[in-house]
Amino acid sequence: MGTVTPSPWKQLLLSAIESNSHLKHSYFVQFATIGSNGRPSNRSVVFRGFEENSDRIQINTDFGTLKIEELNHCPFAEICWYFTDSWEQFRINGRVDVIDGSNPNPAKLQQREKLWFASSIKSRLQYLGPNPGLPCLSEQSPAEFFLDPSSGPVATFCLLVLEPDQVDYLNLKSNQRIVSTLSRSANGEMCWNSEMINP
Amino acid sequence: MGTVTPSPWKQLLLSAIESNSHLKHSYFVQFATIGSNGRPSNRSVVFRGFEENSDRIQINTDFGTLKIEELNHCPFAEICWYFTDSWEQFRINGRVDVIDGSNPNPAKLQQREKLWFASSIKSRLQYLGPNPGLPCLSEQSPAEFFLDPSSGPVATFCLLVLEPDQVDYLNLKSNQRIVSTLSRSANGEMCWNSEMINP
Repeated sequence: MGTVTPSPWKQLLLSAIESNSHLKHSYFVQFATIGSNGRPSNRSVVFRGFEENSDRIQINTDFGTLKIEELNHCPFAEICWYFTDSWEQFRINGRVDVIDGSNPNPAKLQQREKLWFASSIKSRLQYLGPNPGLPCLSEQSPAEFFLDPSSGPVATFCLLVLEPDQVDYLNLKSNQRIVSTLSRSANGEMCWNSEMINP
Repeated sequence: MGTVTPSPWKQLLLSAIESNSHLKHSYFVQFATIGSNGRPSNRSVVFRGFEENSDRIQINTDFGTLKIEELNHCPFAEICWYFTDSWEQFRINGRVDVIDGSNPNPAKLQQREKLWFASSIKSRLQYLGPNPGLPCLSEQSPAEFFLDPSSGPVATFCLLVLEPDQVDYLNLKSNQRIVSTLSRSANGEMCWNSEMINP
Protein backbone atom coordinates (compact mmCIF):
# COMPACT_ATOMS: atom_id res chain seq x y z
CA MET A 1 0.00 0.00 0.00
CA GLY A 2 1.74 3.18 -1.21
CA THR A 3 0.48 6.58 -0.17
CA VAL A 4 -0.18 8.90 -3.06
CA THR A 5 -0.64 12.25 -1.35
CA PRO A 6 2.15 13.48 0.94
CA SER A 7 1.35 12.76 4.57
CA PRO A 8 0.49 15.95 6.46
CA TRP A 9 1.97 14.70 9.75
CA LYS A 10 5.40 13.64 8.54
CA GLN A 11 6.80 17.16 8.31
CA LEU A 12 5.53 17.89 11.83
CA LEU A 13 7.23 14.73 13.09
CA LEU A 14 10.52 15.47 11.30
CA SER A 15 10.49 18.97 12.84
CA ALA A 16 9.85 17.56 16.30
CA ILE A 17 12.67 15.02 15.89
CA GLU A 18 14.99 17.82 14.75
CA SER A 19 14.12 20.20 17.58
CA ASN A 20 14.51 17.47 20.24
CA SER A 21 17.55 15.76 18.70
CA HIS A 22 19.89 17.01 21.45
CA LEU A 23 18.12 14.57 23.80
CA LYS A 24 19.18 10.96 23.37
CA HIS A 25 15.88 9.74 24.76
CA SER A 26 13.90 11.53 22.05
CA TYR A 27 14.34 8.44 19.83
CA PHE A 28 12.60 6.26 22.43
CA VAL A 29 8.95 5.65 21.63
CA GLN A 30 6.32 3.58 23.40
CA PHE A 31 5.02 0.75 21.25
CA ALA A 32 1.67 -0.77 22.23
CA THR A 33 0.40 -4.10 20.94
CA ILE A 34 -2.25 -6.56 22.04
CA GLY A 35 -0.98 -9.30 24.29
CA SER A 36 -1.78 -12.96 23.72
CA ASN A 37 -3.98 -12.79 26.83
CA GLY A 38 -6.06 -10.04 25.16
CA ARG A 39 -4.65 -7.31 27.38
CA PRO A 40 -2.71 -4.29 26.15
CA SER A 41 1.06 -4.57 26.09
CA ASN A 42 3.36 -1.52 26.05
CA ARG A 43 7.13 -1.00 25.97
CA SER A 44 9.81 1.43 24.84
CA VAL A 45 11.54 0.79 21.53
CA VAL A 46 14.00 2.85 19.50
CA PHE A 47 12.90 4.67 16.35
CA ARG A 48 15.29 3.60 13.56
CA GLY A 49 14.15 6.06 10.91
CA PHE A 50 11.71 5.96 8.05
CA GLU A 51 12.01 3.54 5.19
CA GLU A 52 13.32 5.52 2.21
CA ASN A 53 10.75 7.71 0.44
CA SER A 54 7.93 6.47 2.61
CA ASP A 55 6.03 7.08 5.85
CA ARG A 56 6.93 3.64 7.18
CA ILE A 57 8.59 3.56 10.58
CA GLN A 58 11.41 1.11 11.28
CA ILE A 59 12.16 -0.59 14.59
CA ASN A 60 14.66 -3.34 15.38
CA THR A 61 13.81 -6.12 17.75
CA ASP A 62 14.81 -9.58 18.88
CA PHE A 63 12.77 -12.36 17.32
CA GLY A 64 12.45 -13.94 20.77
CA THR A 65 10.55 -11.04 22.36
CA LEU A 66 6.89 -11.38 23.19
CA LYS A 67 5.94 -8.57 20.82
CA ILE A 68 6.68 -10.81 17.82
CA GLU A 69 4.20 -13.40 19.07
CA GLU A 70 1.73 -10.60 19.79
CA LEU A 71 2.11 -9.09 16.32
CA ASN A 72 1.63 -12.49 14.69
CA HIS A 73 -1.66 -12.67 16.55
CA CYS A 74 -2.75 -9.06 15.94
CA PRO A 75 -0.56 -7.11 13.48
CA PHE A 76 -1.55 -3.62 14.68
CA ALA A 77 0.38 -1.29 16.96
CA GLU A 78 0.15 2.25 18.27
CA ILE A 79 3.28 4.23 18.90
CA CYS A 80 3.06 7.00 21.47
CA TRP A 81 5.91 9.42 20.94
CA TYR A 82 6.20 12.24 23.42
CA PHE A 83 8.84 14.91 22.87
CA THR A 84 9.87 16.17 26.29
CA ASP A 85 11.43 19.42 25.10
CA SER A 86 8.84 20.67 22.60
CA TRP A 87 5.83 19.16 24.44
CA GLU A 88 4.51 17.46 21.32
CA GLN A 89 2.87 14.03 21.20
CA PHE A 90 2.35 11.81 18.17
CA ARG A 91 0.11 8.77 18.39
CA ILE A 92 0.87 6.68 15.32
CA ASN A 93 -1.39 3.74 14.56
CA GLY A 94 -0.89 1.19 11.82
CA ARG A 95 -0.16 -2.30 10.68
CA VAL A 96 3.23 -3.84 11.40
CA ASP A 97 5.21 -6.02 9.04
CA VAL A 98 7.53 -8.43 10.89
CA ILE A 99 10.64 -9.10 8.78
CA ASP A 100 12.95 -11.86 9.96
CA GLY A 101 15.59 -13.83 8.08
CA SER A 102 13.02 -16.24 6.62
CA ASN A 103 11.11 -13.51 4.77
CA PRO A 104 10.53 -14.56 1.11
CA ASN A 105 10.77 -10.98 -0.21
CA PRO A 106 14.38 -10.12 -1.30
CA ALA A 107 13.78 -6.34 -0.99
CA LYS A 108 12.63 -6.77 2.61
CA LEU A 109 15.60 -9.00 3.43
CA GLN A 110 17.88 -6.35 1.97
CA GLN A 111 16.21 -3.69 4.11
CA ARG A 112 16.70 -5.87 7.20
CA GLU A 113 20.38 -6.24 6.33
CA LYS A 114 20.69 -2.48 5.87
CA LEU A 115 19.27 -1.85 9.34
CA TRP A 116 21.62 -4.43 10.83
CA PHE A 117 24.68 -2.67 9.46
CA ALA A 118 23.25 0.71 10.47
CA SER A 119 23.24 -0.48 14.11
CA SER A 120 26.22 -0.04 16.37
CA ILE A 121 28.30 -3.10 17.22
CA LYS A 122 27.03 -2.75 20.80
CA SER A 123 23.43 -2.93 19.58
CA ARG A 124 24.20 -5.94 17.39
CA LEU A 125 25.80 -7.79 20.30
CA GLN A 126 22.48 -7.71 22.16
CA TYR A 127 21.07 -10.16 19.62
CA LEU A 128 23.67 -12.73 20.66
CA GLY A 129 22.59 -12.73 24.31
CA PRO A 130 20.29 -15.24 25.98
CA ASN A 131 16.63 -15.42 24.92
CA PRO A 132 14.85 -12.26 26.16
CA GLY A 133 12.03 -12.82 28.63
CA LEU A 134 13.29 -16.20 29.82
CA PRO A 135 14.57 -16.69 33.37
CA CYS A 136 18.12 -15.49 33.91
CA LEU A 137 20.31 -18.58 34.08
CA SER A 138 23.81 -17.22 33.71
CA GLU A 139 25.81 -14.13 34.43
CA GLN A 140 27.09 -13.98 30.87
CA SER A 141 26.79 -10.48 29.44
CA PRO A 142 26.58 -9.66 25.70
CA ALA A 143 29.99 -7.99 25.96
CA GLU A 144 31.51 -11.45 26.29
CA PHE A 145 30.34 -12.47 22.83
CA PHE A 146 32.40 -11.84 19.75
CA LEU A 147 30.94 -10.49 16.55
CA ASP A 148 32.66 -9.93 13.21
CA PRO A 149 31.64 -6.39 12.18
CA SER A 150 31.33 -7.47 8.55
CA SER A 151 28.97 -10.40 9.13
CA GLY A 152 25.32 -9.98 8.26
CA PRO A 153 22.26 -10.13 10.54
CA VAL A 154 21.99 -12.99 13.00
CA ALA A 155 18.84 -15.14 13.01
CA THR A 156 17.33 -13.37 16.02
CA PHE A 157 17.55 -9.93 14.39
CA CYS A 158 14.14 -8.79 13.27
CA LEU A 159 12.95 -5.62 11.55
CA LEU A 160 9.50 -4.24 12.32
CA VAL A 161 8.00 -1.85 9.79
CA LEU A 162 4.92 0.11 10.88
CA GLU A 163 2.78 1.53 8.08
CA PRO A 164 0.79 4.39 9.65
CA ASP A 165 -2.86 4.88 8.75
CA GLN A 166 -3.79 7.26 11.57
CA VAL A 167 -1.70 9.90 13.31
CA ASP A 168 -2.98 11.97 16.21
CA TYR A 169 -0.80 15.03 16.83
CA LEU A 170 -1.04 17.05 20.04
CA ASN A 171 0.92 20.18 20.85
CA LEU A 172 0.75 20.94 24.58
CA LYS A 173 2.27 24.40 24.13
CA SER A 174 -0.22 25.69 21.54
CA ASN A 175 -2.97 23.31 22.74
CA GLN A 176 -3.61 22.21 19.15
CA ARG A 177 -4.59 18.72 18.11
CA ILE A 178 -4.73 17.43 14.55
CA VAL A 179 -5.87 13.95 13.56
CA SER A 180 -4.79 12.68 10.13
CA THR A 181 -6.41 9.58 8.68
CA LEU A 182 -5.49 7.63 5.58
CA SER A 183 -8.48 6.62 3.50
CA ARG A 184 -9.42 5.64 -0.01
CA SER A 185 -10.84 8.49 -2.08
CA ALA A 186 -13.61 8.15 -4.70
CA ASN A 187 -11.05 7.58 -7.48
CA GLY A 188 -9.47 4.72 -5.55
CA GLU A 189 -6.33 6.54 -4.45
CA MET A 190 -5.21 6.47 -0.83
CA CYS A 191 -5.09 9.93 0.67
CA TRP A 192 -4.62 11.60 4.03
CA ASN A 193 -7.38 13.71 5.55
CA SER A 194 -6.62 15.98 8.48
CA GLU A 195 -8.94 17.55 10.97
CA MET A 196 -8.36 19.87 13.91
CA ILE A 197 -10.06 18.41 16.96
CA ASN A 198 -10.47 19.46 20.57
CA PRO A 199 -7.46 18.52 22.72
CA MET B 1 -8.58 -7.03 45.99
CA GLY B 2 -6.03 -6.05 48.64
CA THR B 3 -2.43 -7.14 48.38
CA VAL B 4 -1.14 -8.86 51.48
CA THR B 5 2.59 -9.04 50.88
CA PRO B 6 4.42 -5.78 50.17
CA SER B 7 4.95 -5.31 46.44
CA PRO B 8 8.61 -5.77 45.49
CA TRP B 9 8.43 -3.24 42.64
CA LYS B 10 6.94 -0.29 44.52
CA GLN B 11 10.14 0.70 46.28
CA LEU B 12 12.02 0.57 42.97
CA LEU B 13 9.39 2.79 41.40
CA LEU B 14 9.40 5.27 44.29
CA SER B 15 13.21 5.49 44.03
CA ALA B 16 13.02 6.08 40.28
CA ILE B 17 10.40 8.82 40.76
CA GLU B 18 12.61 10.42 43.42
CA SER B 19 15.80 10.32 41.36
CA ASN B 20 14.06 11.74 38.26
CA SER B 21 11.85 14.25 40.07
CA HIS B 22 13.85 17.24 38.78
CA LEU B 23 12.36 16.49 35.34
CA LYS B 24 8.78 17.66 34.93
CA HIS B 25 8.18 15.06 32.23
CA SER B 26 9.06 12.19 34.57
CA TYR B 27 5.41 12.13 35.71
CA PHE B 28 4.24 11.48 32.14
CA VAL B 29 3.53 7.81 31.47
CA GLN B 30 2.22 6.05 28.38
CA PHE B 31 -1.11 4.36 28.98
CA ALA B 32 -2.12 1.63 26.53
CA THR B 33 -5.64 0.27 26.20
CA ILE B 34 -7.51 -1.71 23.59
CA GLY B 35 -9.42 0.44 21.11
CA SER B 36 -13.04 -0.24 20.21
CA ASN B 37 -11.80 -1.34 16.78
CA GLY B 38 -9.67 -4.04 18.46
CA ARG B 39 -6.42 -2.21 17.81
CA PRO B 40 -4.02 -0.99 20.50
CA SER B 41 -4.43 2.57 21.67
CA ASN B 42 -1.64 4.50 23.43
CA ARG B 43 -1.31 7.99 24.89
CA SER B 44 0.54 9.98 27.55
CA VAL B 45 -1.18 10.62 30.85
CA VAL B 46 0.02 12.14 34.12
CA PHE B 47 0.75 9.95 37.15
CA ARG B 48 -1.25 11.41 40.08
CA GLY B 49 0.25 9.32 42.84
CA PHE B 50 -0.67 6.10 44.57
CA GLU B 51 -3.91 5.66 46.43
CA GLU B 52 -3.06 5.80 50.14
CA ASN B 53 -1.48 2.64 51.58
CA SER B 54 -1.84 0.76 48.34
CA ASP B 55 -0.16 -0.05 45.02
CA ARG B 56 -3.01 1.47 43.04
CA ILE B 57 -2.02 4.14 40.53
CA GLN B 58 -4.21 7.21 40.05
CA ILE B 59 -4.76 9.10 36.80
CA ASN B 60 -7.19 11.93 36.05
CA THR B 61 -9.02 12.09 32.77
CA ASP B 62 -11.97 13.65 30.98
CA PHE B 63 -15.03 11.43 30.81
CA GLY B 64 -15.40 12.36 27.14
CA THR B 65 -12.07 10.85 26.03
CA LEU B 66 -12.01 7.67 23.98
CA LYS B 67 -10.08 5.80 26.70
CA ILE B 68 -13.22 5.72 28.89
CA GLU B 69 -15.17 3.96 26.14
CA GLU B 70 -12.22 1.65 25.60
CA LEU B 71 -11.91 0.78 29.30
CA ASN B 72 -15.64 0.07 29.50
CA HIS B 73 -15.10 -2.44 26.74
CA CYS B 74 -11.85 -3.93 28.07
CA PRO B 75 -10.86 -2.79 31.59
CA PHE B 76 -7.15 -3.60 31.31
CA ALA B 77 -4.28 -1.23 30.64
CA GLU B 78 -0.51 -1.30 30.52
CA ILE B 79 1.48 1.72 31.61
CA CYS B 80 4.94 2.10 30.13
CA TRP B 81 6.96 4.45 32.29
CA TYR B 82 10.41 5.29 31.07
CA PHE B 83 12.68 7.40 33.26
CA THR B 84 14.95 9.37 30.95
CA ASP B 85 17.59 10.21 33.54
CA SER B 86 18.04 6.88 35.34
CA TRP B 87 17.31 4.74 32.24
CA GLU B 88 14.73 2.63 34.05
CA GLN B 89 11.51 1.30 32.56
CA PHE B 90 8.44 0.02 34.37
CA ARG B 91 5.70 -1.79 32.48
CA ILE B 92 2.71 -1.90 34.79
CA ASN B 93 -0.24 -4.05 33.80
CA GLY B 94 -3.56 -4.25 35.58
CA ARG B 95 -7.26 -3.66 35.74
CA VAL B 96 -8.57 -0.11 35.71
CA ASP B 97 -11.47 1.19 37.75
CA VAL B 98 -13.24 4.15 36.10
CA ILE B 99 -14.66 6.45 38.77
CA ASP B 100 -16.96 9.22 37.59
CA GLY B 101 -19.51 11.28 39.51
CA SER B 102 -22.18 8.57 39.20
CA ASN B 103 -20.15 5.97 41.11
CA PRO B 104 -22.29 4.32 43.83
CA ASN B 105 -19.34 3.88 46.22
CA PRO B 106 -19.01 6.86 48.65
CA ALA B 107 -15.32 6.12 49.38
CA LYS B 108 -14.52 6.21 45.65
CA LEU B 109 -16.46 9.44 45.19
CA GLN B 110 -14.52 10.93 48.06
CA GLN B 111 -11.24 9.84 46.45
CA ARG B 112 -12.32 11.44 43.17
CA GLU B 113 -13.06 14.67 45.02
CA LYS B 114 -9.67 14.53 46.73
CA LEU B 115 -7.90 14.24 43.38
CA TRP B 116 -9.94 17.13 41.99
CA PHE B 117 -8.82 19.46 44.77
CA ALA B 118 -5.24 18.18 44.47
CA SER B 119 -5.19 19.40 40.84
CA SER B 120 -4.14 22.92 39.93
CA ILE B 121 -6.83 25.39 38.88
CA LYS B 122 -5.29 25.30 35.41
CA SER B 123 -5.73 21.51 35.25
CA ARG B 124 -9.30 21.77 36.50
CA LEU B 125 -10.17 24.35 33.84
CA GLN B 126 -9.38 21.80 31.13
CA TYR B 127 -12.48 19.85 32.17
CA LEU B 128 -14.65 22.83 31.26
CA GLY B 129 -13.43 22.98 27.66
CA PRO B 130 -15.19 21.51 24.64
CA ASN B 131 -15.59 17.74 24.33
CA PRO B 132 -12.15 16.22 23.64
CA GLY B 133 -11.77 14.39 20.36
CA LEU B 134 -14.63 16.20 18.63
CA PRO B 135 -13.99 18.56 15.73
CA CYS B 136 -12.79 22.00 16.78
CA LEU B 137 -15.72 24.36 16.35
CA SER B 138 -14.70 27.47 18.23
CA GLU B 139 -11.62 29.35 19.21
CA GLN B 140 -12.68 29.40 22.87
CA SER B 141 -9.83 28.38 25.14
CA PRO B 142 -10.23 26.94 28.67
CA ALA B 143 -8.69 30.13 30.08
CA GLU B 144 -11.91 31.94 29.17
CA PHE B 145 -13.94 29.82 31.57
CA PHE B 146 -14.39 30.75 35.19
CA LEU B 147 -14.10 28.24 38.01
CA ASP B 148 -14.73 28.75 41.70
CA PRO B 149 -11.67 27.19 43.42
CA SER B 150 -13.89 25.83 46.21
CA SER B 151 -16.37 24.00 43.98
CA GLY B 152 -16.13 20.25 43.71
CA PRO B 153 -15.43 18.09 40.66
CA VAL B 154 -17.32 18.83 37.46
CA ALA B 155 -19.27 16.01 35.76
CA THR B 156 -16.57 15.41 33.13
CA PHE B 157 -13.85 14.83 35.76
CA CYS B 158 -13.03 11.18 36.01
CA LEU B 159 -10.54 9.27 38.16
CA LEU B 160 -8.86 6.14 36.80
CA VAL B 161 -7.38 3.72 39.32
CA LEU B 162 -5.07 1.02 37.98
CA GLU B 163 -4.57 -2.00 40.22
CA PRO B 164 -1.29 -3.60 39.09
CA ASP B 165 -1.00 -7.37 38.84
CA GLN B 166 2.20 -7.53 36.79
CA VAL B 167 5.19 -5.21 36.76
CA ASP B 168 8.12 -5.65 34.41
CA TYR B 169 11.14 -3.62 35.53
CA LEU B 170 14.10 -2.99 33.24
CA ASN B 171 17.27 -1.11 34.17
CA LEU B 172 19.20 -0.15 31.03
CA LYS B 173 22.28 0.87 33.01
CA SER B 174 22.73 -2.40 34.91
CA ASN B 175 20.95 -4.43 32.20
CA GLN B 176 18.77 -6.09 34.85
CA ARG B 177 15.17 -7.09 34.34
CA ILE B 178 12.80 -8.25 37.06
CA VAL B 179 9.23 -9.37 36.48
CA SER B 180 6.88 -9.33 39.46
CA THR B 181 3.53 -11.09 39.25
CA LEU B 182 0.65 -11.06 41.70
CA SER B 183 -0.87 -14.46 42.25
CA ARG B 184 -2.91 -16.38 44.76
CA SER B 185 -0.88 -18.61 47.05
CA ALA B 186 -1.95 -22.01 48.38
CA ASN B 187 -3.46 -20.45 51.52
CA GLY B 188 -5.60 -18.11 49.41
CA GLU B 189 -3.62 -14.94 50.02
CA MET B 190 -2.55 -12.75 47.12
CA CYS B 191 1.22 -12.42 46.92
CA TRP B 192 3.87 -11.03 44.63
CA ASN B 193 6.44 -13.31 43.03
CA SER B 194 9.52 -11.84 41.40
CA GLU B 195 11.90 -13.37 38.92
CA MET B 196 15.03 -12.07 37.21
CA ILE B 197 14.69 -12.59 33.51
CA ASN B 198 16.87 -11.91 30.48
CA PRO B 199 16.56 -8.31 29.25
